[in-house]
Amino acid sequence: MASCHAAVATLFQTRLAEAARATEGALDRALSATPEAGEVARPARLLEAMRYAVLGGGKRLRPFLLIESARLFAGDAGIAAGAAAALECVHAYSLVHDDLPAMDDDDVRRGRPTVHKAFDEATAILAGDALLTIAFDILAGLDAPAETRVALVAGLARAAGVGGMAGGQMLDLAEDAVWDEAHLRGMQRMKTGALFAYAAEAGAVVAGASDEDRDRLRRFGAHFGAAFQLADDLDDAATDDAAGRPSLVALLGPDAARAMLIREVEAAVDLLVPFGASAGVLADAARFVAGSSG
Amino acid sequence: MASCHAAVATLFQTRLAEAARATEGALDRALSATPEAGEVARPARLLEAMRYAVLGGGKRLRPFLLIESARLFAGDAGIAAGAAAALECVHAYSLVHDDLPAMDDDDVRRGRPTVHKAFDEATAILAGDALLTIAFDILAGLDAPAETRVALVAGLARAAGVGGMAGGQMLDLAEDAVWDEAHLRGMQRMKTGALFAYAAEAGAVVAGASDEDRDRLRRFGAHFGAAFQLADDLDDAATDDAAGRPSLVALLGPDAARAMLIREVEAAVDLLVPFGASAGVLADAARFVAGSSG
Repeated sequence: MASCHAAVATLFQTRLAEAARATEGALDRALSATPEAGEVARPARLLEAMRYAVLGGGKRLRPFLLIESARLFAGDAGIAAGAAAALECVHAYSLVHDDLPAMDDDDVRRGRPTVHKAFDEATAILAGDALLTIAFDILAGLDAPAETRVALVAGLARAAGVGGMAGGQMLDLAEDAVWDEAHLRGMQRMKTGALFAYAAEAGAVVAGASDEDRDRLRRFGAHFGAAFQLADDLDDAATDDAAGRPSLVALLGPDAARAMLIREVEAAVDLLVPFGASAGVLADAARFVAGSSG
Repeated sequence: MASCHAAVATLFQTRLAEAARATEGALDRALSATPEAGEVARPARLLEAMRYAVLGGGKRLRPFLLIESARLFAGDAGIAAGAAAALECVHAYSLVHDDLPAMDDDDVRRGRPTVHKAFDEATAILAGDALLTIAFDILAGLDAPAETRVALVAGLARAAGVGGMAGGQMLDLAEDAVWDEAHLRGMQRMKTGALFAYAAEAGAVVAGASDEDRDRLRRFGAHFGAAFQLADDLDDAATDDAAGRPSLVALLGPDAARAMLIREVEAAVDLLVPFGASAGVLADAARFVAGSSG
């Protein structure tokens, strides 16, 4: 069993590294110094801040979900990598803005100064704005049917906007909120869940999968995102990094949170059953995310 | 002549008011409290800040250009109003972020407290983010062919991004820039020109106009935007509002700037000649914008 688990982890790790490479290649091309048609110029300092924010590492879990979901339905790998780059621009923008002094006021991310520390606050605001904007530029320019591109744009905008990620960050900042389980789960469905759900669904969209399969992957991504958040909160609690921040772990205690995490992973994996062995690496990813704080 | 000029101004004013009403109706619907499909909830305070930012007045010149350009090619008025609402969300987001303490640090806009003053800084950042995001949601959801929606998304993203409006704001903030005429014109083509050019072109896109007509309207919008910026700078200089801010008026003096303004209006109006009388209201708009500081 141990060697089998190791082999499984290795396939997942290989695919995760592949997805990161493909995404970073697409990001590097999208964020080149050469202006695109219709652009006057790309100011060097702004472009540098955008690249610093989005090419500075990270596990690229969301791109992985998108790319592997597209592969599940035999979608085009190049289009999936482009869509993954757009998604990662939105994720990176959210980190840049969340780190700002007026928000979470963080000086360090992934062991490096945050964008407003490495550059300055105005540049960080604009770099976040421009990363969010270029995500839609990338999606609109994919070599895919117009219907596919529109569906990718619509889904990303809804996942990232007032009823998704941005709204979730707003709820997270609310000082007068009642931090009960329903509120915390709702906030996390918006703040982190929506983008994971989009990631998995967008791969199915890229591949032209059926509405039913799109919906199934979206729900898989939502459970994956909930598991990811719980694992992250458990890690933070274990390392004393939580610092009074409201979370399901703080509210329910680590044992109940770990049980909830296991249920989320099971729900995610169950949704993949119809796809059999070809969805194995997505199932392993869900187990891996949970296991990292197991 | 005087009475003729008054009648012309009245048609333009009527159409400007009509465009504002249509745009505000579309904005009101897009920013309703009811979550859309795929949204968990719309946090009340964030939605309130978004509405405060985008429904707080303004001449709606960009929506007017879009709607009148669509009318010129017999485009659907409802689709044009939707696209105009998306465009105005992007314009409003740019004002909210530009007003932030780390940027221009303005406390008042149009006689009301800026968003970060009326709410708080974190809410203003998120309201800007969510306005930018919902613009693409609105465009992707228009009742238009997918090709049209994709073209509208692509154009807006490029006009607003690193090579357009956001890049222009970055150049405007640069402290070590050489403020010669070429730099100022480049900066203003990006910061204000790109969105005006998009506005006029997007109307042609909505109407399915030919590539040649799209390009012609885009160039009309670019000259219109340059005229608008020069008129605005002349106004600021006249009211001592410029406060050492670099501008073509400060660099060249008001007489040379006014001559440049007249040339921009002439170039804009010349581009409309092939359309004859049906483009009269767009030509009048260009003359009106210039005349407001004449």
